Amino acid sequence: VRVEDCTGLSRLCVARSRDGYTDWIIENERGMTPQRDNFAEHWGIEDPRITKCGDDYFITYTGFSEGGPLICLASTRDFITFERRGVLMPPEDKDAALFPVQFDGRWALLHRPVPNLQLGAHIWLSYSPDLHHWGEMQMLIDAPRGGWWDAGKIGLGPPPLATEQGWLICYHGVKQTAAGSLYRLGLALLDLEDPSKLLARGNEWVFGPSAPYEQNGDVPNVVFPCGWILEDDNDTIRMYYGAADTCIGVATASVQSLLEYLHRHRR
Amino acid sequence: VRVEDCTGLSRLCVARSRDGYTDWIIENERGMTPQRDNFAEHWGIEDPRITKCGDDYFITYTGFSEGGPLICLASTRDFITFERRGVLMPPEDKDAALFPVQFDGRWALLHRPVPNLQLGAHIWLSYSPDLHHWGEMQMLIDAPRGGWWDAGKIGLGPPPLATEQGWLICYHGVKQTAAGSLYRLGLALLDLEDPSKLLARGNEWVFGPSAPYEQNGDVPNVVFPCGWILEDDNDTIRMYYGAADTCIGVATASVQSLLEYLHRHRR
Repeated sequence: VRVEDCTGLSRLCVARSRDGYTDWIIENERGMTPQRDNFAEHWGIEDPRITKCGDDYFITYTGFSEGGPLICLASTRDFITFERRGVLMPPEDKDAALFPVQFDGRWALLHRPVPNLQLGAHIWLSYSPDLHHWGEMQMLIDAPRGGWWDAGKIGLGPPPLATEQGWLICYHGVKQTAAGSLYRLGLALLDLEDPSKLLARGNEWVFGPSAPYEQNGDVPNVVFPCGWILEDDNDTIRMYYGAADTCIGVATASVQSLLEYLHRHRR
Repeated sequence: VRVEDCTGLSRLCVARSRDGYTDWIIENERGMTPQRDNFAEHWGIEDPRITKCGDDYFITYTGFSEGGPLICLASTRDFITFERRGVLMPPEDKDAALFPVQFDGRWALLHRPVPNLQLGAHIWLSYSPDLHHWGEMQMLIDAPRGGWWDAGKIGLGPPPLATEQGWLICYHGVKQTAAGSLYRLGLALLDLEDPSKLLARGNEWVFGPSAPYEQNGDVPNVVFPCGWILEDDNDTIRMYYGAADTCIGVATASVQSLLEYLHRHRR
Protein backbone atom coordinates (compact mmCIF):
# COMPACT_ATOMS: atom_id res chain seq x y z
CA VAL A 1 0.00 0.00 0.00
CA ARG A 2 1.35 3.42 -0.89
CA VAL A 3 -0.05 6.73 0.30
CA GLU A 4 1.25 9.83 -1.42
CA ASP A 5 1.29 13.06 0.50
CA CYS A 6 2.67 16.22 -1.01
CA THR A 7 3.34 18.13 2.22
CA GLY A 8 5.76 15.61 3.67
CA LEU A 9 4.10 16.02 7.09
CA SER A 10 3.15 12.73 8.70
CA ARG A 11 -0.35 12.11 10.01
CA LEU A 12 -2.36 9.30 11.57
CA CYS A 13 -4.81 7.88 9.08
CA VAL A 14 -7.27 4.98 9.36
CA ALA A 15 -6.88 2.07 6.91
CA ARG A 16 -9.23 -0.90 6.85
CA SER A 17 -9.08 -4.43 5.49
CA ARG A 18 -11.36 -7.37 6.13
CA ASP A 19 -8.54 -9.89 6.64
CA GLY A 20 -5.71 -7.52 7.54
CA TYR A 21 -3.76 -8.48 4.43
CA THR A 22 -5.65 -7.53 1.30
CA ASP A 23 -8.08 -4.97 -0.16
CA TRP A 24 -7.04 -2.09 2.05
CA ILE A 25 -9.21 1.02 2.10
CA ILE A 26 -7.42 4.15 3.24
CA GLU A 27 -9.79 6.64 4.83
CA ASN A 28 -7.96 9.88 4.25
CA GLU A 29 -10.48 11.95 6.22
CA ARG A 30 -10.41 9.73 9.30
CA GLY A 31 -7.62 9.96 11.84
CA MET A 32 -5.48 12.71 13.29
CA THR A 33 -4.15 15.48 11.10
CA PRO A 34 -1.39 17.66 12.56
CA GLN A 35 -2.73 20.91 13.99
CA ARG A 36 -0.24 23.39 12.59
CA ASP A 37 -1.15 25.94 15.29
CA ASN A 38 -0.57 23.33 18.00
CA PHE A 39 3.02 23.83 19.11
CA ALA A 40 3.45 20.14 19.94
CA GLU A 41 2.62 18.82 16.47
CA HIS A 42 3.51 21.72 14.22
CA TRP A 43 5.71 19.56 12.00
CA GLY A 44 3.61 16.40 12.07
CA ILE A 45 2.32 13.34 13.91
CA GLU A 46 4.57 10.29 13.71
CA ASP A 47 4.86 6.68 14.78
CA PRO A 48 1.71 6.12 16.88
CA ARG A 49 1.58 3.18 19.28
CA ILE A 50 -1.92 2.14 20.30
CA THR A 51 -2.72 0.47 23.62
CA LYS A 52 -6.23 -0.70 24.49
CA CYS A 53 -7.26 -0.11 28.10
CA GLY A 54 -10.87 -0.96 28.79
CA ASP A 55 -12.95 0.91 26.22
CA ASP A 56 -10.21 3.42 25.46
CA TYR A 57 -7.53 3.20 22.85
CA PHE A 58 -4.59 5.27 24.08
CA ILE A 59 -2.36 6.56 21.32
CA THR A 60 1.16 7.65 22.21
CA TYR A 61 2.65 9.43 19.25
CA THR A 62 5.63 11.53 18.35
CA GLY A 63 4.59 15.13 18.00
CA PHE A 64 7.14 16.90 15.87
CA SER A 65 7.09 20.19 17.75
CA GLU A 66 8.81 23.43 16.90
CA GLY A 67 11.23 22.55 19.69
CA GLY A 68 11.91 19.01 18.45
CA PRO A 69 10.20 15.61 18.60
CA LEU A 70 8.33 14.87 21.82
CA ILE A 71 5.82 12.37 23.25
CA CYS A 72 2.10 13.18 23.04
CA LEU A 73 -0.97 11.26 24.15
CA ALA A 74 -4.36 11.02 22.51
CA SER A 75 -7.28 8.66 23.02
CA THR A 76 -10.23 7.38 21.05
CA ARG A 77 -13.02 4.88 21.47
CA ASP A 78 -14.18 4.66 17.86
CA PHE A 79 -11.31 5.93 15.67
CA ILE A 80 -13.67 8.68 14.51
CA THR A 81 -13.20 11.26 17.26
CA PHE A 82 -9.82 11.66 18.93
CA GLU A 83 -9.06 13.50 22.15
CA ARG A 84 -5.65 15.12 22.51
CA ARG A 85 -4.31 14.72 26.05
CA GLY A 86 -1.13 16.75 25.90
CA VAL A 87 2.63 16.39 26.06
CA LEU A 88 4.06 13.56 28.19
CA MET A 89 7.79 14.11 27.68
CA PRO A 90 9.82 17.11 26.46
CA PRO A 91 12.03 16.87 23.38
CA GLU A 92 13.84 14.95 22.19
CA ASP A 93 11.80 11.85 22.92
CA LYS A 94 10.16 9.25 20.66
CA ASP A 95 8.97 5.65 20.42
CA ALA A 96 6.66 5.61 23.43
CA ALA A 97 3.94 3.13 24.36
CA LEU A 98 1.76 2.65 27.41
CA PHE A 99 1.37 -0.70 29.11
CA PRO A 100 -2.26 -1.88 28.96
CA VAL A 101 -2.40 -2.43 32.72
CA GLN A 102 -1.42 -0.39 35.76
CA PHE A 103 1.23 -1.34 38.30
CA ASP A 104 0.30 -0.54 41.90
CA GLY A 105 -2.15 1.99 40.53
CA ARG A 106 0.44 3.64 38.29
CA TRP A 107 0.47 3.90 34.54
CA ALA A 108 3.76 2.88 32.93
CA LEU A 109 5.33 4.25 29.77
CA LEU A 110 8.23 3.03 27.69
CA HIS A 111 9.94 5.84 25.79
CA ARG A 112 13.22 6.75 24.16
CA PRO A 113 14.81 10.11 25.02
CA VAL A 114 17.70 11.14 22.79
CA PRO A 115 20.56 13.04 24.40
CA ASN A 116 22.33 15.60 22.26
CA LEU A 117 25.71 14.31 23.34
CA GLN A 118 26.96 11.15 21.70
CA LEU A 119 25.95 8.84 24.55
CA GLY A 120 23.59 6.54 22.69
CA ALA A 121 19.79 6.57 22.80
CA HIS A 122 18.23 4.10 25.21
CA ILE A 123 14.76 2.84 26.22
CA TRP A 124 13.44 4.39 29.44
CA LEU A 125 10.56 3.54 31.76
CA SER A 126 8.48 6.16 33.57
CA TYR A 127 5.37 6.02 35.74
CA SER A 128 2.34 8.25 36.21
CA PRO A 129 -0.58 8.36 38.66
CA ASP A 130 -2.86 10.19 36.19
CA LEU A 131 -1.47 9.96 32.61
CA HIS A 132 -0.57 13.67 32.86
CA HIS A 133 2.37 13.85 35.26
CA TRP A 134 5.34 11.53 34.85
CA GLY A 135 8.16 10.51 37.14
CA GLU A 136 10.28 7.64 38.50
CA MET A 137 12.20 7.92 35.24
CA GLN A 138 14.78 5.21 34.73
CA MET A 139 16.84 3.74 31.94
CA LEU A 140 15.64 0.21 31.21
CA ILE A 141 17.30 -1.14 28.05
CA ASP A 142 20.54 0.40 26.88
CA ALA A 143 22.09 0.62 23.47
CA PRO A 144 25.44 -1.15 23.66
CA ARG A 145 28.52 0.53 22.27
CA GLY A 146 30.30 -0.41 19.10
CA GLY A 147 29.95 -3.44 16.90
CA TRP A 148 26.52 -4.72 17.93
CA TRP A 149 23.55 -4.61 15.56
CA ASP A 150 21.80 -2.33 18.09
CA ALA A 151 24.77 -0.12 18.88
CA GLY A 152 24.16 3.57 19.20
CA LYS A 153 20.39 3.80 19.17
CA ILE A 154 17.43 1.63 20.12
CA GLY A 155 13.74 2.32 20.45
CA LEU A 156 10.56 0.46 21.28
CA GLY A 157 8.65 -1.09 18.40
CA PRO A 158 5.05 -2.18 19.10
CA PRO A 159 3.52 -1.81 22.58
CA PRO A 160 4.59 -4.45 25.13
CA LEU A 161 2.76 -7.78 24.76
CA ALA A 162 1.71 -9.78 27.81
CA THR A 163 2.83 -13.43 27.66
CA GLU A 164 2.87 -16.05 30.39
CA GLN A 165 6.61 -15.48 30.75
CA GLY A 166 6.55 -11.70 30.88
CA TRP A 167 6.11 -8.61 28.73
CA LEU A 168 7.52 -9.35 25.30
CA ILE A 169 9.34 -6.32 23.93
CA CYS A 170 10.22 -5.90 20.27
CA TYR A 171 12.62 -3.03 19.67
CA HIS A 172 14.46 -1.57 16.74
CA GLY A 173 18.20 -1.21 16.85
CA VAL A 174 20.20 1.02 14.58
CA LYS A 175 23.69 0.52 13.31
CA GLN A 176 25.49 3.09 11.26
CA THR A 177 26.87 1.78 8.00
CA ALA A 178 28.80 3.43 5.22
CA ALA A 179 25.48 3.88 3.39
CA GLY A 180 23.46 5.27 6.32
CA SER A 181 21.38 3.76 9.11
CA LEU A 182 20.39 0.08 9.19
CA TYR A 183 17.24 -0.66 11.26
CA ARG A 184 16.69 -4.20 12.56
CA LEU A 185 14.54 -5.73 15.30
CA GLY A 186 15.40 -7.54 18.51
CA LEU A 187 13.59 -8.95 21.54
CA ALA A 188 13.56 -8.46 25.29
CA LEU A 189 11.40 -9.68 28.15
CA LEU A 190 10.20 -7.70 31.19
CA ASP A 191 8.77 -9.00 34.44
CA LEU A 192 4.95 -9.15 34.33
CA GLU A 193 4.48 -7.67 37.80
CA ASP A 194 7.42 -5.26 37.75
CA PRO A 195 8.30 -4.07 34.23
CA SER A 196 11.43 -2.33 35.53
CA LYS A 197 12.98 -5.83 35.77
CA LEU A 198 14.65 -6.85 32.52
CA LEU A 199 14.38 -10.66 32.51
CA ALA A 200 16.06 -11.39 29.22
CA ARG A 201 17.46 -9.72 26.16
CA GLY A 202 18.41 -11.32 22.89
CA ASN A 203 21.87 -10.92 21.48
CA GLU A 204 20.82 -11.27 17.84
CA TRP A 205 18.35 -9.41 15.73
CA VAL A 206 15.32 -11.42 14.61
CA PHE A 207 14.07 -9.35 11.69
CA GLY A 208 15.87 -7.06 9.27
CA PRO A 209 15.45 -5.54 5.82
CA SER A 210 15.68 -8.12 3.04
CA ALA A 211 12.73 -7.62 0.67
CA PRO A 212 13.15 -5.01 -2.08
CA TYR A 213 10.52 -2.75 -0.48
CA GLU A 214 12.46 -2.87 2.79
CA GLN A 215 15.83 -2.22 1.21
CA ASN A 216 14.73 0.51 -1.19
CA GLY A 217 12.61 3.59 -0.65
CA ASP A 218 12.72 7.06 0.86
CA VAL A 219 14.94 5.76 3.69
CA PRO A 220 16.60 2.50 2.58
CA ASN A 221 17.09 -0.45 4.93
CA VAL A 222 14.46 0.32 7.54
CA VAL A 223 11.93 -2.00 9.16
CA PHE A 224 10.00 -0.05 11.81
CA PRO A 225 6.99 -1.67 13.51
CA CYS A 226 4.55 0.38 15.60
CA GLY A 227 1.87 -2.26 16.15
CA TRP A 228 1.20 -5.95 16.42
CA ILE A 229 -1.85 -8.04 17.23
CA LEU A 230 -2.20 -11.48 18.74
CA GLU A 231 -4.41 -13.76 16.69
CA ASP A 232 -7.17 -15.94 18.12
CA ASP A 233 -4.87 -18.95 18.44
CA ASN A 234 -3.15 -16.95 21.22
CA ASP A 235 0.22 -17.67 19.65
CA THR A 236 0.47 -16.04 16.23
CA ILE A 237 1.56 -12.45 16.30
CA ARG A 238 0.91 -10.25 13.30
CA MET A 239 3.28 -7.32 13.13
CA TYR A 240 2.71 -4.24 10.95
CA TYR A 241 5.78 -2.21 10.14
CA GLY A 242 6.99 0.69 8.08
CA ALA A 243 9.33 -0.46 5.34
CA ALA A 244 12.00 1.93 4.04
CA ASP A 245 9.79 4.81 5.31
CA THR A 246 7.74 4.30 2.15
CA CYS A 247 5.19 1.51 2.58
CA ILE A 248 3.68 -0.74 5.26
CA GLY A 249 4.48 -4.42 5.52
CA VAL A 250 3.13 -7.24 7.66
CA ALA A 251 4.96 -10.22 9.14
CA THR A 252 3.85 -13.09 11.36
CA ALA A 253 5.59 -15.14 14.02
CA SER A 254 4.82 -17.59 16.79
CA VAL A 255 5.08 -16.02 20.23
CA GLN A 256 6.28 -19.33 21.69
CA SER A 257 9.03 -19.55 19.10
CA LEU A 258 10.07 -15.94 19.79
CA LEU A 259 10.29 -16.67 23.53
CA GLU A 260 12.29 -19.86 22.92
CA TYR A 261 14.60 -18.00 20.56
CA LEU A 262 15.07 -15.25 23.13
CA HIS A 263 16.10 -17.75 25.81
CA ARG A 264 18.48 -19.58 23.49
CA HIS A 265 20.15 -16.35 22.40
CA ARG A 266 20.45 -14.33 25.60
CA ARG A 267 22.96 -11.58 25.73
CA VAL B 1 38.80 31.19 44.19
CA ARG B 2 40.13 28.12 42.46
CA VAL B 3 39.39 24.53 43.38
CA GLU B 4 41.52 21.88 41.77
CA ASP B 5 40.02 18.46 41.24
CA CYS B 6 41.98 15.74 39.53
CA THR B 7 39.05 13.54 38.49
CA GLY B 8 37.34 16.16 36.34
CA LEU B 9 33.97 15.10 37.82
CA SER B 10 31.93 18.02 39.12
CA ARG B 11 30.48 18.01 42.60
CA LEU B 12 28.51 20.31 44.90
CA CYS B 13 30.75 21.70 47.62
CA VAL B 14 30.03 24.19 50.41
CA ALA B 15 32.10 27.39 50.49
CA ARG B 16 31.72 30.03 53.20
CA SER B 17 32.63 33.68 53.54
CA ARG B 18 31.55 36.18 56.15
CA ASP B 19 30.79 38.96 53.66
CA GLY B 20 30.26 36.89 50.51
CA TYR B 21 33.29 38.49 48.82
CA THR B 22 36.48 37.70 50.72
CA ASP B 23 38.17 35.05 52.86
CA TRP B 24 36.36 32.07 51.38
CA ILE B 25 36.68 28.73 53.13
CA ILE B 26 35.98 25.73 50.91
CA GLU B 27 34.68 22.78 52.87
CA ASN B 28 35.70 19.90 50.67
CA GLU B 29 33.96 17.30 52.81
CA ARG B 30 30.61 19.11 52.92
CA GLY B 31 28.21 18.95 50.02
CA MET B 32 27.17 16.34 47.48
CA THR B 33 29.74 14.06 45.90
CA PRO B 34 28.62 12.11 42.82
CA GLN B 35 27.58 8.56 43.69
CA ARG B 36 29.36 6.61 40.97
CA ASP B 37 27.00 3.66 41.44
CA ASN B 38 23.98 5.95 41.09
CA PHE B 39 23.03 5.81 37.43
CA ALA B 40 21.76 9.38 37.43
CA GLU B 41 25.00 11.00 38.55
CA HIS B 42 27.63 8.55 37.41
CA TRP B 43 29.61 11.23 35.57
CA GLY B 44 29.07 14.05 38.05
CA ILE B 45 26.82 16.66 39.65
CA GLU B 46 26.69 19.98 37.82
CA ASP B 47 25.17 23.46 37.93
CA PRO B 48 22.95 23.31 41.05
CA ARG B 49 20.18 25.91 41.46
CA ILE B 50 18.95 26.33 45.02
CA THR B 51 15.43 27.45 45.89
CA LYS B 52 14.34 28.04 49.48
CA CYS B 53 10.80 26.88 50.26
CA GLY B 54 9.91 27.15 53.94
CA ASP B 55 12.65 25.36 55.86
CA ASP B 56 13.78 23.34 52.85
CA TYR B 57 16.43 24.26 50.34
CA PHE B 58 15.55 22.44 47.10
CA ILE B 59 18.50 21.80 44.84
CA THR B 60 17.84 21.09 41.18
CA TYR B 61 21.04 19.89 39.60
CA THR B 62 22.27 18.33 36.41
CA GLY B 63 23.05 14.70 36.99
CA PHE B 64 25.46 13.58 34.34
CA SER B 65 24.01 10.10 33.90
CA GLU B 66 25.31 7.23 31.83
CA GLY B 67 22.50 8.07 29.42
CA GLY B 68 23.29 11.78 29.25
CA PRO B 69 22.67 14.89 31.36
CA LEU B 70 19.32 14.98 33.19
CA ILE B 71 17.51 16.91 35.92
CA CYS B 72 17.74 15.65 39.52
CA LEU B 73 16.32 17.01 42.76
CA ALA B 74 17.85 17.01 46.23
CA SER B 75 16.95 18.88 49.39
CA THR B 76 18.67 19.98 52.54
CA ARG B 77 17.88 22.04 55.61
CA ASP B 78 21.39 22.57 56.95
CA PHE B 79 23.80 21.96 54.03
CA ILE B 80 25.25 19.10 56.07
CA THR B 81 22.87 16.28 55.16
CA PHE B 82 21.34 16.12 51.69
CA GLU B 83 18.40 14.01 50.58
CA ARG B 84 18.34 12.81 46.98
CA ARG B 85 14.80 12.94 45.57
CA GLY B 86 15.28 11.39 42.16
CA VAL B 87 15.16 12.20 38.47
CA LEU B 88 12.71 14.91 37.32
CA MET B 89 13.40 14.92 33.58
CA PRO B 90 15.03 12.37 31.24
CA PRO B 91 18.11 13.29 29.21
CA GLU B 92 19.09 15.57 27.70
CA ASP B 93 17.92 18.27 30.09
CA LYS B 94 19.79 20.87 32.13
CA ASP B 95 19.55 24.30 33.77
CA ALA B 96 16.49 23.66 35.94
CA ALA B 97 15.18 25.62 38.91
CA LEU B 98 12.06 25.44 41.02
CA PHE B 99 9.93 28.47 41.76
CA PRO B 100 9.86 29.16 45.52
CA VAL B 101 6.04 29.22 45.58
CA GLN B 102 3.31 26.96 44.23
CA PHE B 103 0.73 27.94 41.62
CA ASP B 104 -2.75 26.59 42.28
CA GLY B 105 -1.14 23.93 44.45
CA ARG B 106 1.34 22.92 41.76
CA TRP B 107 5.11 23.16 41.84
CA ALA B 108 6.65 24.78 38.77
CA LEU B 109 10.01 24.03 37.18
CA LEU B 110 11.97 25.87 34.53
CA HIS B 111 14.25 23.56 32.56
CA ARG B 112 16.07 23.30 29.26
CA PRO B 113 15.68 20.09 27.23
CA VAL B 114 18.09 19.73 24.32
CA PRO B 115 16.81 18.04 21.19
CA ASN B 116 19.30 16.03 19.21
CA LEU B 117 18.15 17.60 15.97
CA GLN B 118 19.41 21.08 15.21
CA LEU B 119 16.24 22.85 16.38
CA GLY B 120 17.74 25.03 19.08
CA ALA B 121 17.54 24.51 22.85
CA HIS B 122 14.80 26.43 24.60
CA ILE B 123 13.55 27.09 28.15
CA TRP B 124 10.53 25.00 29.14
CA LEU B 125 8.05 25.17 32.00
CA SER B 126 6.55 22.08 33.67
CA TYR B 127 4.30 21.54 36.68
CA SER B 128 4.05 18.90 39.38
CA PRO B 129 1.58 18.12 42.14
CA ASP B 130 4.20 16.34 44.27
CA LEU B 131 7.77 17.18 43.07
CA HIS B 132 8.00 13.61 41.72
CA HIS B 133 5.72 13.52 38.68
CA TRP B 134 5.91 16.26 36.05
CA GLY B 135 3.55 17.33 33.29
CA GLU B 136 1.88 20.26 31.50
CA MET B 137 5.20 20.64 29.69
CA GLN B 138 5.42 23.71 27.50
CA MET B 139 8.04 25.76 25.74
CA LEU B 140 8.29 29.16 27.41
CA ILE B 141 11.29 31.10 26.07
CA ASP B 142 12.72 30.18 22.71
CA ALA B 143 16.16 30.57 21.28
CA PRO B 144 15.83 32.72 18.17
CA ARG B 145 17.50 31.66 14.97
CA GLY B 146 20.58 33.23 13.44
CA GLY B 147 22.37 36.43 14.28
CA TRP B 148 21.09 37.10 17.80
CA TRP B 149 23.37 36.88 20.83
CA ASP B 150 21.12 34.11 22.18
CA ALA B 151 20.68 32.23 18.90
CA GLY B 152 20.87 28.48 19.03
CA LYS B 153 20.82 27.77 22.75
CA ILE B 154 19.52 29.40 25.90
CA GLY B 155 19.18 28.19 29.47
CA LEU B 156 18.05 29.50 32.81
CA GLY B 157 20.67 31.11 35.02
CA PRO B 158 19.75 31.64 38.70
CA PRO B 159 16.31 30.64 40.04
CA PRO B 160 13.47 33.06 39.21
CA LEU B 161 13.38 36.14 41.47
CA ALA B 162 10.07 37.59 42.63
CA THR B 163 9.77 41.34 42.00
CA GLU B 164 6.72 43.58 42.18
CA GLN B 165 6.53 43.49 38.38
CA GLY B 166 6.87 39.72 37.97
CA TRP B 167 9.41 36.90 38.09
CA LEU B 168 12.74 38.26 36.93
CA ILE B 169 14.54 35.68 34.80
CA CYS B 170 18.23 35.82 34.01
CA TYR B 171 19.25 33.40 31.29
CA HIS B 172 22.38 32.58 29.38
CA GLY B 173 22.42 32.70 25.63
CA VAL B 174 24.99 31.03 23.46
CA LYS B 175 26.27 32.17 20.12
CA GLN B 176 28.68 30.12 18.09
CA THR B 177 31.77 32.00 17.01
CA ALA B 178 34.78 30.98 14.99
CA ALA B 179 36.58 30.31 18.30
CA GLY B 180 33.80 28.32 20.01
CA SER B 181 30.79 29.19 22.17
CA LEU B 182 30.22 32.67 23.61
CA TYR B 183 28.01 32.71 26.75
CA ARG B 184 26.25 35.96 27.69
CA LEU B 185 23.29 36.84 29.91
CA GLY B 186 19.90 38.34 29.16
CA LEU B 187 16.67 39.11 31.01
CA ALA B 188 13.01 38.17 30.83
CA LEU B 189 9.97 38.73 33.01
CA LEU B 190 7.18 36.25 33.81
CA ASP B 191 3.75 36.94 35.28
CA LEU B 192 3.75 36.59 39.07
CA GLU B 193 0.49 34.65 39.21
CA ASP B 194 0.92 32.67 36.00
CA PRO B 195 4.58 32.03 35.12
CA SER B 196 3.58 30.58 31.75
CA LYS B 197 2.95 34.18 30.64
CA LEU B 198 6.08 35.83 29.25
CA LEU B 199 5.58 39.54 30.00
CA ALA B 200 8.81 40.89 28.56
CA ARG B 201 12.10 39.82 27.10
CA GLY B 202 15.16 41.90 26.49
CA ASN B 203 16.68 42.16 23.05
CA GLU B 204 20.22 42.80 24.28
CA TRP B 205 22.48 40.90 26.60
CA VAL B 206 23.26 42.63 29.90
CA PHE B 207 26.39 40.79 30.99
CA GLY B 208 29.14 39.08 29.01
CA PRO B 209 32.73 37.96 29.37
CA SER B 210 35.17 40.87 29.59
CA ALA B 211 37.50 40.29 32.54
CA PRO B 212 40.59 38.13 31.91
CA TYR B 213 39.22 35.34 34.16
CA GLU B 214 35.99 35.31 32.11
CA GLN B 215 37.74 35.33 28.76
CA ASN B 216 40.44 32.79 29.59
CA GLY B 217 40.24 29.40 31.27
CA ASP B 218 39.19 25.83 30.66
CA VAL B 219 36.27 27.04 28.52
CA PRO B 220 36.99 30.59 27.34
CA ASN B 221 34.31 33.29 27.13
CA VAL B 222 31.75 31.84 29.52
CA VAL B 223 29.78 33.60 32.27
CA PHE B 224 27.37 31.10 33.82
CA PRO B 225 25.40 32.09 36.94
CA CYS B 226 23.54 29.50 39.01
CA GLY B 227 22.58 31.67 41.98
CA TRP B 228 21.82 35.17 43.12
CA ILE B 229 20.69 36.75 46.37
CA LEU B 230 18.74 39.88 47.09
CA GLU B 231 20.43 42.09 49.67
CA ASP B 232 18.67 43.68 52.63
CA ASP B 233 18.02 46.92 50.72
CA ASN B 234 15.58 44.83 48.64
CA ASP B 235 17.11 46.17 45.42
CA THR B 236 20.72 45.03 45.13
CA ILE B 237 21.13 41.63 43.59
CA ARG B 238 24.37 39.76 44.07
CA MET B 239 24.98 37.19 41.37
CA TYR B 240 27.50 34.37 41.62
CA TYR B 241 28.64 32.87 38.34
CA GLY B 242 31.08 30.43 36.87
CA ALA B 243 33.71 32.21 34.78
CA ALA B 244 35.37 30.37 31.90
CA ASP B 245 34.43 27.09 33.68
CA THR B 246 37.44 27.73 35.89
CA CYS B 247 36.59 30.06 38.76
CA ILE B 248 33.61 31.73 40.43
CA GLY B 249 32.91 35.44 40.12
CA VAL B 250 30.40 37.77 41.72
CA ALA B 251 28.60 40.77 40.23
CA THR B 252 26.01 43.18 41.60
CA ALA B 253 23.15 45.08 40.03
CA SER B 254 20.07 47.06 41.00
CA VAL B 255 16.87 45.11 40.40
CA GLN B 256 15.02 48.34 39.56
CA SER B 257 17.61 49.25 36.96
CA LEU B 258 17.42 45.74 35.46
CA LEU B 259 13.63 46.03 35.18
CA GLU B 260 13.88 49.50 33.64
CA TYR B 261 16.50 48.26 31.20
CA LEU B 262 14.32 45.31 30.30
CA HIS B 263 11.38 47.57 29.47
CA ARG B 264 13.51 49.98 27.44
CA HIS B 265 15.03 47.15 25.42
CA ARG B 266 12.12 44.83 24.74
CA ARG B 267 12.41 42.44 21.88
